[in-house]
Amino acid sequence: MALVVVGGVAAGLSAAARARRLDARLEIIVLEKGPIISYGACGLPYFVEGRVAEARQLIVYTPEYFRKERRIDVRTNARVASISHPRREVVLASGARVPYERLVIATGARCDASMIAGANQPHVFTLHTLDDAERMRAFLRKRKPQTAAVIGAGYIGVEAADALRRNGLAVTVMEASSHALSRDDAALTDAVRKQLERHHVELRTGVRVNTIDELAYDIVVVAAGFKPNVELAADAGIEVGRTGAIRTDDRMETNLRGVYAAGDCAEVGHLVSGRPTWIPLGTTANKTGRVAGANAAGGRERFAGVVGTSIVSIFGMGFATAGLSVAQAKAEGFDPVSARIEAYAKPRYYGGTKTAVDLVADRATRRILGGSVIGEDGAAGRINVVATALETRMRVDEFEQLDLAYAPPFSTVWDPLLIAAQQLMKEF
Amino acid sequence: MALVVVGGVAAGLSAAARARRLDARLEIIVLEKGPIISYGACGLPYFVEGRVAEARQLIVYTPEYFRKERRIDVRTNARVASISHPRREVVLASGARVPYERLVIATGARCDASMIAGANQPHVFTLHTLDDAERMRAFLRKRKPQTAAVIGAGYIGVEAADALRRNGLAVTVMEASSHALSRDDAALTDAVRKQLERHHVELRTGVRVNTIDELAYDIVVVAAGFKPNVELAADAGIEVGRTGAIRTDDRMETNLRGVYAAGDCAEVGHLVSGRPTWIPLGTTANKTGRVAGANAAGGRERFAGVVGTSIVSIFGMGFATAGLSVAQAKAEGFDPVSARIEAYAKPRYYGGTKTAVDLVADRATRRILGGSVIGEDGAAGRINVVATALETRMRVDEFEQLDLAYAPPFSTVWDPLLIAAQQLMKEF
Repeated sequence: MALVVVGGVAAGLSAAARARRLDARLEIIVLEKGPIISYGACGLPYFVEGRVAEARQLIVYTPEYFRKERRIDVRTNARVASISHPRREVVLASGARVPYERLVIATGARCDASMIAGANQPHVFTLHTLDDAERMRAFLRKRKPQTAAVIGAGYIGVEAADALRRNGLAVTVMEASSHALSRDDAALTDAVRKQLERHHVELRTGVRVNTIDELAYDIVVVAAGFKPNVELAADAGIEVGRTGAIRTDDRMETNLRGVYAAGDCAEVGHLVSGRPTWIPLGTTANKTGRVAGANAAGGRERFAGVVGTSIVSIFGMGFATAGLSVAQAKAEGFDPVSARIEAYAKPRYYGGTKTAVDLVADRATRRILGGSVIGEDGAAGRINVVATALETRMRVDEFEQLDLAYAPPFSTVWDPLLIAAQQLMKEF
Repeated sequence: MALVVVGGVAAGLSAAARARRLDARLEIIVLEKGPIISYGACGLPYFVEGRVAEARQLIVYTPEYFRKERRIDVRTNARVASISHPRREVVLASGARVPYERLVIATGARCDASMIAGANQPHVFTLHTLDDAERMRAFLRKRKPQTAAVIGAGYIGVEAADALRRNGLAVTVMEASSHALSRDDAALTDAVRKQLERHHVELRTGVRVNTIDELAYDIVVVAAGFKPNVELAADAGIEVGRTGAIRTDDRMETNLRGVYAAGDCAEVGHLVSGRPTWIPLGTTANKTGRVAGANAAGGRERFAGVVGTSIVSIFGMGFATAGLSVAQAKAEGFDPVSARIEAYAKPRYYGGTKTAVDLVADRATRRILGGSVIGEDGAAGRINVVATALETRMRVDEFEQLDLAYAPPFSTVWDPLLIAAQQLMKEF
């Protein structure tokens, strides 16, 4: 009896590969509904932009590689229609049945454009699959659109806006909520808006688009309405949590024994709030896939959880966040204290530019709850320090003394993170 | 009665400024032996190189600034001849006496070139003060030397070599020990050697220079023989530790009550080894100065300690280390396990280059003991994650699941740090 994995992108293939490492003889079958596996979905905007020349550069592994090198039976264009757990079998849209002993569900998420009327027109795109990106790039080259609307100011939305603007289009981003990057943080949204405007991209928040026909743009990118693909699981009796994603324990097991979920379709624990969360990111997909695959192969591994670390480049400026914003911390029941500073990321004499750091801590315990870093230089490294501090429940008075590296080509002697921590200490 | 601070660079001025913040009325006197205060000593190689145009760009604050804005009495050219603690007074070389109630000793370190015969010749330089750097740059411009020897392959030595090479000189670095960057780590030394050679700088290890006359070079930079300036303190009855630097407790207080030491002259606790260490760095100088100043002004602050995080750029490549190397871990009584990997710092499709990561952990507890990161991209941010993990005594199995930021312009979905941790986990 086999381990069957539903989904052949990040989480699914991580699960399959990890299971193979733990059990050299296990039969492993990966069912991917699309024609291609293992593509770097996060690279799609850069392919649309043209920075990545060929779509195949985004493909990491082929089914042949998995078959030959890992003895994993990867089947493409294999759409699963249903899961019958009592029979321990997966039913394909073709009618074929694939029996399993253990199952990993890695069905991912989707951008549900169907909620917007007229989204099936040829100038309307989502940016989720390699095929989406190829069609969009072909449209840009052949039809030479001049104006673009991007619906949604989350990561994919702003990356798409950046890519389109670099192709010379006049771009407007429309976001239904009051904030960008899916984070309730007014200062962050202001900074995103300023950076977009500096590059002649307009950001309109609080704008809900109901029908494409409202929009007089040559091309429309829908990057909103993301939701986890849970229908298959739910129909099979697998519990979905309050986030709307599949509920899992810290072994990535669902309520059905022997059935695991991983990646963008699954909930994970949030190490700051202590509650299940749904933050679909490639990093988490790979990690949870690995854990699900290990456990499905008889291992005993734990996924610790996430702190929601993410970063996006908008015209060369990094916007990075981790943990909770002040508003999010309040919503989670904390009494947050925060400080926001601007400081040079390198000495001025070394040509340093300013970086903005925001830190949030809990008033009672001084525990750091979250932060953001905005800068052309070092934003990823700095948010990763915040993330590490969050995972270890560090207090701000401990954080303030972190022994961070310094040399003029890299930072200032008081790193902006430490200056932010000093400022935050004054708030207690 | 006053707080007197001996030394007006990083630690001394941090102490004075912090004391002023805590006590608006305290009389604070800073005695600096040289003509200039508050210069960025770490910027000196970049001034020699020519990247920093003017020496004054390295000066952060003037005595006038401290007098007017902080009401701190900064006296330059005020060389302290002795400290009489029974009398609570400092005696200047001029014969003047300055009484104190609390004292902060921030006398720094020096490069002792006198151990090399002939070091007082006009073509021989150290690179410690602004005056050193100005004289060296003037020599380069007027005398147009063609060949250079740098004695010492520590941070300042390799930075000086980089600066001289960029000025067109043929440069040879001579290091008495078998390793570069003051770290017993053969792989790191190999990487330094390769990077220097790629830029036509020769590194000769195991070469002790006894007399300048052995060396037929147009210019010689002595960047070896660093030692803490402890004589003044020792003569006053202040204890010096086994490292040769002034012994302090975690409040930066010496064995004499009310007398504090901070910066390059002082020992601090090492958070990995648990023992006093002497790692003279600007970051630690500023932090320990701040703590010493706070406590000298009646506060009660603690300096947690260091993990020895440092970074240096060698021709654009970052060489970063934190904690202990395998050899150092063994010397401290650990049973270390280590892994070294090379991985792309960004996706190849995004033009990523490779970075090398080394992680060391304790076999029994899996606690991370140290690491190094070598790369053109992101080395500072990555070593800072290692540093944060070291400060929180993180285990490698925890580190392996760190929620690090990912987007193609910044990193790979599996950050090289996580790949190194996965590799290290296989060693247990």
